Amino acid sequence: MTLRVTVPDAAWLERLADLDDRVELSVWDFVTPQPDGPVDLAVSPYRNSTDGLNRIDPSRIGVIQLQTLGYDGVRDALPVGITVCNAVGVHEGSTAELAVALLLASARHLDSYAREQGQWIRRWGTSVADRRIMLLGYGGIGVEIEKRLEGFGAELVRVAGHRREDDRGVVHGNDELAELLPSVDAVIVAVPLSADTASLIGDAFLDALPDNAVVVNVSRGKVADTDAVVRQAGRIRYAADVTDPEPLPAGHPLWEVPGTLISPHVGGMSTAMQPRIDAVVRRQIDNLLEGRGPDSVVISS
Amino acid sequence: MTLRVTVPDAAWLERLADLDDRVELSVWDFVTPQPDGPVDLAVSPYRNSTDGLNRIDPSRIGVIQLQTLGYDGVRDALPVGITVCNAVGVHEGSTAELAVALLLASARHLDSYAREQGQWIRRWGTSVADRRIMLLGYGGIGVEIEKRLEGFGAELVRVAGHRREDDRGVVHGNDELAELLPSVDAVIVAVPLSADTASLIGDAFLDALPDNAVVVNVSRGKVADTDAVVRQAGRIRYAADVTDPEPLPAGHPLWEVPGTLISPHVGGMSTAMQPRIDAVVRRQIDNLLEGRGPDSVVISS
Repeated sequence: MTLRVTVPDAAWLERLADLDDRVELSVWDFVTPQPDGPVDLAVSPYRNSTDGLNRIDPSRIGVIQLQTLGYDGVRDALPVGITVCNAVGVHEGSTAELAVALLLASARHLDSYAREQGQWIRRWGTSVADRRIMLLGYGGIGVEIEKRLEGFGAELVRVAGHRREDDRGVVHGNDELAELLPSVDAVIVAVPLSADTASLIGDAFLDALPDNAVVVNVSRGKVADTDAVVRQAGRIRYAADVTDPEPLPAGHPLWEVPGTLISPHVGGMSTAMQPRIDAVVRRQIDNLLEGRGPDSVVISS
Repeated sequence: MTLRVTVPDAAWLERLADLDDRVELSVWDFVTPQPDGPVDLAVSPYRNSTDGLNRIDPSRIGVIQLQTLGYDGVRDALPVGITVCNAVGVHEGSTAELAVALLLASARHLDSYAREQGQWIRRWGTSVADRRIMLLGYGGIGVEIEKRLEGFGAELVRVAGHRREDDRGVVHGNDELAELLPSVDAVIVAVPLSADTASLIGDAFLDALPDNAVVVNVSRGKVADTDAVVRQAGRIRYAADVTDPEPLPAGHPLWEVPGTLISPHVGGMSTAMQPRIDAVVRRQIDNLLEGRGPDSVVISS
């Protein structure tokens, strides 16, 4: 058998050049016209956009492998009949690393020092050591954040859907959130976007936090109510890799809120990505060659 | 017996108010005239300066407890006959935390994002995951850095005085430094300042590193040759909590080097400090009340 695989740019051809000759590789970037013949596996470009998905002919594509973990809007944009897989294991560690970077940079004022280069202005920082840090969302990213924070001497307060216990102690349920927020010094939010989590970081959430608490958002922009964050100007430190709207336009009031640090949705944009997405694609090729179904299916044909 | 203890400001009196009545507390800031009567233990103010030490009458002071780990210049400034103790266990964790913050912020471009607030400019970052990170200096701070980096998926390359092995593997000797530098992606420098380490981060050291390597300096400013760092502008990323000279004056060329992030010697200036320095002082009071010698003596009377 021959497995027809498309990859989004020519660099991929080199990286996969060692694959056996049952695999026929070609380049398709999801922007130029779809290949005429059937494609068994199409690796989509690395982007959060759904542009062009509605023009795809499902009769000529078996499986689409996304390079992102999120797939907001893909189901609505894509014609019925294609299997879609997300990129599990590719971005979680890199995003967790950025979450810790945002927490530390904000708490130790590196954002202010960067802006004030040229002036020697010392400030007392908030250590992570001795503090209570809430991990809100204990999925793939939350677990990776926990691993990275373990050596910092903080008390980690884990919150997920339903209260349970594991070998590290209690994972609190969402229903305990309001009661726990006043007792923590920082919250790192890494929940998926859903009807339950949209605007979760809103007035009630922020009001419940003590003064100078740090809120780190590495989930989705719409998990925060941007207006509510702006209203807390100066009381809460806000460090986010995601915003609503996104990109955050020039002149938006969030840019100007004191104590706010925004990175432009780069949680997954690090050197950690390429070896991990390559491994995912290689495993999917192997799955299809061996007649197994693909891993990490999020939309079934 | 009564133990006479001076503390550098009135806030200390409250924090130590529960001590038993064998301890007589008073305030002395090392700037106003020295108390007339004998002092058994004088806690110096938190500063890196040696101002005023030369005016101290050693016949009326037993022990000086510094609030810093470093004691550069204290021996030269202070009259002979006073025991001096440094603050072991107070700043190491906080400094290690800042070292990791500087590494992550520089590698993931948070310094650039902070400076560019108002613009949405995405950049690929260097993850800590998968990278070789050298810990140069494996004393109190180095060990704390290692603890904090353990969960990040990096390969840690430890370098100290002499090659040895411990339960985590090899600690390389200084004599292997030149050979190891070309193979690492980042170096965190946490060595004490000495004749051997002055200007260690110089031309040869920096030239040996690969392009885009990150150098983090949390040791002392003079461990780096500032001119050499400036000469590497754009090739190496430099993130330092210490500079030479210090404070770094406005207009100094180091402020302007692209890819440089400077924090103004705030490694110990975090909420982690107060509980730890209080514990050190309480332990010293206990030592003296019980007739034991003080801990952490760096200059003997």
